[in-house]
Amino acid sequence: MVHYVELPDGRCYPVVIDSLETLPVWLERVAVPRGRCFLVTDEHVAHLHLESLQAILKTAGWTPYVLVLPPGEPTKALPYLERIYDEALRWGIDRRTPLLAFGGGVIGDLAGFAAATLLRGLPLVQLPTTLIAQVDSAIGGKTGINHALGKNLIGAFYQPALVLADPSLLQTLPEREWTSGLAEVVKHALIGDPALFSLLEMRWTDVLQRNPSLLPDLIARAVLVKIRIVVQDEREAGPRAILNFGHTFGHAIERVAGYGHFTHGEAVALGMLAALWLSHQRHPDLPLTRIRALLQRLPVPPLPETLDFKTLRQVMQVDKKTLAGQLRFVLLRRLGEAYLADDVPEEALQAAWQFACASRQTAVAY
Amino acid sequence: MVHYVELPDGRCYPVVIDSLETLPVWLERVAVPRGRCFLVTDEHVAHLHLESLQAILKTAGWTPYVLVLPPGEPTKALPYLERIYDEALRWGIDRRTPLLAFGGGVIGDLAGFAAATLLRGLPLVQLPTTLIAQVDSAIGGKTGINHALGKNLIGAFYQPALVLADPSLLQTLPEREWTSGLAEVVKHALIGDPALFSLLEMRWTDVLQRNPSLLPDLIARAVLVKIRIVVQDEREAGPRAILNFGHTFGHAIERVAGYGHFTHGEAVALGMLAALWLSHQRHPDLPLTRIRALLQRLPVPPLPETLDFKTLRQVMQVDKKTLAGQLRFVLLRRLGEAYLADDVPEEALQAAWQFACASRQTAVAY
Repeated sequence: MVHYVELPDGRCYPVVIDSLETLPVWLERVAVPRGRCFLVTDEHVAHLHLESLQAILKTAGWTPYVLVLPPGEPTKALPYLERIYDEALRWGIDRRTPLLAFGGGVIGDLAGFAAATLLRGLPLVQLPTTLIAQVDSAIGGKTGINHALGKNLIGAFYQPALVLADPSLLQTLPEREWTSGLAEVVKHALIGDPALFSLLEMRWTDVLQRNPSLLPDLIARAVLVKIRIVVQDEREAGPRAILNFGHTFGHAIERVAGYGHFTHGEAVALGMLAALWLSHQRHPDLPLTRIRALLQRLPVPPLPETLDFKTLRQVMQVDKKTLAGQLRFVLLRRLGEAYLADDVPEEALQAAWQFACASRQTAVAY
Repeated sequence: MVHYVELPDGRCYPVVIDSLETLPVWLERVAVPRGRCFLVTDEHVAHLHLESLQAILKTAGWTPYVLVLPPGEPTKALPYLERIYDEALRWGIDRRTPLLAFGGGVIGDLAGFAAATLLRGLPLVQLPTTLIAQVDSAIGGKTGINHALGKNLIGAFYQPALVLADPSLLQTLPEREWTSGLAEVVKHALIGDPALFSLLEMRWTDVLQRNPSLLPDLIARAVLVKIRIVVQDEREAGPRAILNFGHTFGHAIERVAGYGHFTHGEAVALGMLAALWLSHQRHPDLPLTRIRALLQRLPVPPLPETLDFKTLRQVMQVDKKTLAGQLRFVLLRRLGEAYLADDVPEEALQAAWQFACASRQTAVAY
């Protein structure tokens, strides 16, 4: 399956949902000249899938140089960016050498930023290996690294030449990474695709069990939501912000619980419950019970006691999405349609949080 | 005087040749909201002009944060980029905070790259203080830093929101920086503006003495050549390469003589003599004597003995502009019109170099 990201200025690149075996053919189609390529991955992915990717490349006449980095968020930082610069330049890349980012969000963001800035831009190929990366972070051209003062503070908008997402790679994902990714898929359904929502509802058991016959369609639908939003708003001036559904509470939850307690997806799953309640206040026709039921099926660890409303509210205030002191929320007008609201009344916030907490008490937990 | 850079995708920014006093008005015109700004400069420029720039900004209601870096090429490197990241983030920039690059090519490239990558892009304002920066490096969106393995190996294409070049700042330039900048102005005349060439010919004494009544027009004409080329080719796929007139020999000359012996402009002045000879071989109508006469008026230090043809030829071969082993030259078809040639015969190169050396023997030297 292939979708195309067509940007307003005429640039266009394919997002392919297919086996890694098709990579050489797709590299040819996007006019990346066969020869040497620079491959960045992490230890986890290398252990599971590097051998087969290298075999695919070599059989097709490619000469890959492989750089394996430590797994995890701390790798998304300046010292590892410098490591990529040093190895790539010492090896002798030129402006046409493609850089392949083979991994999850950390590798995609880090190697993507390296591709954006080496020789003022190398052809970038995203080979996402996690569900979040396949449906979200590998698409849309956001690249970057963290700084001691915050996440993603240094980076560039830089579109890949090709995204190839192989659904079979997801079979080896740890359980919690899978369900965290599902939170983003549910989010994409809520903000942009009612049919995807129905698919998730009807086939939840297959979804949880990663039924191979289901995955390509699931990924393709979620990808399409992301693409539709990105082409409207490459540099995040407006519509792209609706991708932050569940994030106003979500970011604060992640922070207050302490990074590592919840995954990003789990925090967003909680945040979406709060945002759902706020949306329903304004739009009583929104199918609250139905949406809540799906959100409750996303497994989330128990809420820690430190996670009280007062602390959350304070942390939300300093979040970078605050404009001139006013909190910004993404709300649902109906299933599949979201918008930005700067005028959510203060009193509603605590009730929204209580709704989220109460919903979790009868929900699936780890 | 104002020229506009209109890019094919609809982006547009002004290049203003006027007093720094007009900066606040221009910031308003390009819709940069008044408030805080982050200003990067070097010690030389700070000593001469920082006080007046700060006064201009403060009077107009701006709050500048000033970062003064050491002067010179070694500043264009990762440690100083990191220093800008740290100070800007600690001070608390947001996505709308403009970054002002107040200096020559080093500050423009370094601070420009910081602006390209902080929060995935801040509004960038180029305030060039050298002749080369005013007519060349501040325009066109090339930003970047050096790496131990070579110059400009890390960077981004990132267009400024505004370029404001104040000709009066050039009165304080050291003599050699002025004449080096003139080499680039002569280059722009040769590749794109016969009228600028005539102006340089007829008013060379005024040009050398930096006659204030002449400078705005001189700069504006040279700027226009650069803009015309950049808008055809933002990312240097083709036409932009003609800006490298004189550079195939020039880069090798710089390197063989040892960085520091010649300035970049002086090396290019020598390289242009060689390229002129090659051009005249193919296009006998080209006014060789007339062009040579102007190039001979550019003061250049004596040629060191190490600068023999054999060594030059070897160094040219490994220059990054070599494609598949074939040297690439920019040649003049006529005064004001240049093109790329990959098929210059090997035998011609030594004769071209002898022409350059012979021309310098009767030329102006330091």
